[in-house]
Amino acid sequence: MTKSFEEVCSEVLEKTVPSNNERRHILELAEKLRMRVKTAVEEASIEAEVRVEGSVAKDTWLREEPDIDIFLQVPTTMPRTAFGTICLEIAKKATEGHKQVERFAEHPYLESFINTTRVNIVPCYRVKKGKWISAADRTPFHTDYLKPLLNESLRREIRLLKRFMKGIGVYGAEIRVGGFSGYLCELIILHHGSFIKSLRSIADWRENRIIDYEGHFEGREQEARKIFEEPLVAVDPVDKGRNAAAAVRKEKLDELIVASRAFLAEPRVEFFYPHETVQYSLDKLFHVMTIRGSTIVFIGFGRVRRPPDVLWGQLYKSRRSLRKMLLQHDFKIIRDQIWSNERDLNMFVFEVEQRSLPYTKKHLGPPIEKREECENFLRKHVGVVSTICGPYVEGGRWVVETKRGHTDIVKLLAEKLRRGGRSVGIAKLISEALADTIDILVNEEIAKLYSSDAEFAKFLTEYLKGKPRWLNGMDDQT
Amino acid sequence: MTKSFEEVCSEVLEKTVPSNNERRHILELAEKLRMRVKTAVEEASIEAEVRVEGSVAKDTWLREEPDIDIFLQVPTTMPRTAFGTICLEIAKKATEGHKQVERFAEHPYLESFINTTRVNIVPCYRVKKGKWISAADRTPFHTDYLKPLLNESLRREIRLLKRFMKGIGVYGAEIRVGGFSGYLCELIILHHGSFIKSLRSIADWRENRIIDYEGHFEGREQEARKIFEEPLVAVDPVDKGRNAAAAVRKEKLDELIVASRAFLAEPRVEFFYPHETVQYSLDKLFHVMTIRGSTIVFIGFGRVRRPPDVLWGQLYKSRRSLRKMLLQHDFKIIRDQIWSNERDLNMFVFEVEQRSLPYTKKHLGPPIEKREECENFLRKHVGVVSTICGPYVEGGRWVVETKRGHTDIVKLLAEKLRRGGRSVGIAKLISEALADTIDILVNEEIAKLYSSDAEFAKFLTEYLKGKPRWLNGMDDQT
Repeated sequence: MTKSFEEVCSEVLEKTVPSNNERRHILELAEKLRMRVKTAVEEASIEAEVRVEGSVAKDTWLREEPDIDIFLQVPTTMPRTAFGTICLEIAKKATEGHKQVERFAEHPYLESFINTTRVNIVPCYRVKKGKWISAADRTPFHTDYLKPLLNESLRREIRLLKRFMKGIGVYGAEIRVGGFSGYLCELIILHHGSFIKSLRSIADWRENRIIDYEGHFEGREQEARKIFEEPLVAVDPVDKGRNAAAAVRKEKLDELIVASRAFLAEPRVEFFYPHETVQYSLDKLFHVMTIRGSTIVFIGFGRVRRPPDVLWGQLYKSRRSLRKMLLQHDFKIIRDQIWSNERDLNMFVFEVEQRSLPYTKKHLGPPIEKREECENFLRKHVGVVSTICGPYVEGGRWVVETKRGHTDIVKLLAEKLRRGGRSVGIAKLISEALADTIDILVNEEIAKLYSSDAEFAKFLTEYLKGKPRWLNGMDDQT
Repeated sequence: MTKSFEEVCSEVLEKTVPSNNERRHILELAEKLRMRVKTAVEEASIEAEVRVEGSVAKDTWLREEPDIDIFLQVPTTMPRTAFGTICLEIAKKATEGHKQVERFAEHPYLESFINTTRVNIVPCYRVKKGKWISAADRTPFHTDYLKPLLNESLRREIRLLKRFMKGIGVYGAEIRVGGFSGYLCELIILHHGSFIKSLRSIADWRENRIIDYEGHFEGREQEARKIFEEPLVAVDPVDKGRNAAAAVRKEKLDELIVASRAFLAEPRVEFFYPHETVQYSLDKLFHVMTIRGSTIVFIGFGRVRRPPDVLWGQLYKSRRSLRKMLLQHDFKIIRDQIWSNERDLNMFVFEVEQRSLPYTKKHLGPPIEKREECENFLRKHVGVVSTICGPYVEGGRWVVETKRGHTDIVKLLAEKLRRGGRSVGIAKLISEALADTIDILVNEEIAKLYSSDAEFAKFLTEYLKGKPRWLNGMDDQT
């Protein structure tokens, strides 16, 4: 039985809008933490303002996962290096006794956990509007800009959109996700007025979409498209030179668009709260792999001791390099993925049509019109050992069939990555980790890890299913 | 030791220009045959002129393979059907007691052999210039046009060019070859003045080359390019509406061009008289196939009782259809060939990278911009049995991995050709022959035929070497 849009939304709002008690609890906790940081600042004899920012300041956080952001606005006279030293120490002191993780976006900050509530303590410069020094300097301006514009109703709509994005997997501007920040969700709702209007608009988004609430580029949209090259442009109201959607990767934008359409066509709570993926049994895993008949290569390696954004940036870069290298060697990639527990295990997954390529490779030479190139080509290929067949003329050009350097993908990868793979474009940190430990497994060889690591098993199950989780409910439950 | 161009040419001329005795013998034989045909014509009470045409009439035949062409010019009142009845009977009577083969170009004619000399007796209409009815009607005009223009020297140059074309395998306008007719060779020499000048020009031929000795299109070459769509255009001096090079396929033109360059760079007698290909031993054959690692599929079938031009036309057409069908099923064709002994065995050869394809196939759906198409795509592919994985969005479009209908090339071919393959575009006669007998063999399975049929073994050896025979001598003798 299908529910109406309104029914679904009110069901979701019940779950995701904090109750008055919960709200009070979070706000009190935030204020307590702010004071602790303030005390630590004073003890360190730093002249810094301490403010609560982000979703807690704006009352737009999701009940299930409140994130408290405390910002430390330091004077511009302080050197940048202090962010990673003095500021970090202040943050650590303020959350002493709780779990702490040093993180890094554009600069270092501290993530800690008060019970289950995540608290980010982030240093930035206290600047005049427009005189940005660090990337985080705009955040207090975002808070100040948005607070007066929001009301109870808009905050509900924002929570719906955020929850929707979380549910379909496009929420978060961190590099791992490459999706939509909370601030961007707020701008989208402001721009369109409500969740449903936003979805309706998104469902029809084409390339060159611009969200420009303050009208910085009104009548000059073309100009904005030249300045910002990212797939989605949302001009930051507090800084017309910044695209608040710069982090959004094309694939996440596409996922949002198609999910919006599907949701509008058939609203379901599962878009906001997807069913947990149940991992395949080992038998089922083997069966699914057999049916595909492809070759899935797992390139596993160990810890990279750097913050997630750095790790993921290098993982993505290295994946592109590997992809290119495999294509250059004629392997036909079906899909590829990255998996990382951000602790001690990282993995590239490359699925190719076949593990082995034919020994012989067709090599296209110059068109016969190019006489000199033809002469060079013939000199190079006639009667040499590497020539298996030809040269001959086909389709107006010289062609030769030559021995392939590599026919087995595992041997190829093992060889290229043996010393870390810098030569094929693997990023530095990944290269170091690969040089240290590398484990290349094919298809069923992954069984051991699959059985012992539930997180990985869930990832691989989802990979093999291959469709967005919200698509599951449409007409099956596979 | 390299020979000069002149040394090579004079060596070739010694072989290919008939001696005075030989010339006299052929001319006497031609005249004798002409008289016999004339007698048969008179006995049949037909009012027809009988003439010697072609290379014997123009004294441009190659000593090693004289072809005597006798033309029967019948009145335009005679119905076309008479070519295959009365005219054929006349021809048979005139060459009674000798080997006779009924042939067919645009219309029927008789090929017979007086000892080893081939004699073609061809009917045509006696028409005024320009009032062509059958394709052969122009031939007497060609003879009359060329004879006064040729001299001893030009005839030598023509023989060199013809012999060169024969040696590199591009001589002959019949469909099997798709190459250069004797008449076209004569026009090329007339146009350029000599063999060496012709080769130098050919070596630099680009697309849109026009040979127009009579200047029918002088200053209007663009116009000629619009009228004639073939890769090479040689305006027929006796009919500006006809391309005397219409039969030349692009690949044969390309082969001539590259061979001309190679010959000019290093003149060798082997271009005119190539070494006979020595077939690989069975061991060597197996070795060469193993090294390639590809899958060579041989589709053999039996007799097609029709003239060679009809047979080859249908073979080429059917090959294109098979090629298309295999590509549609994702098989990567390395090369393909046709072999026929024009008697009881015909064969398609398809070499593909791999015999089997993965069970799963990536199927690209619509770009996400096209909402309606996307909806249809999802309706079709979500949760159905044929969907192995997905749908998911990739590169801006919906994609699904589905079961492949066919993974084995042999099974695919056997299924598609079981009833003759008309549904995949196999030409009628070939389809009938295939429905009658079909034998699909892979790689080493061809050994039996290879060992018992020297003609085929030579073909397969050349196929596996894959390069023009004249390229052999350049720097190796593989």
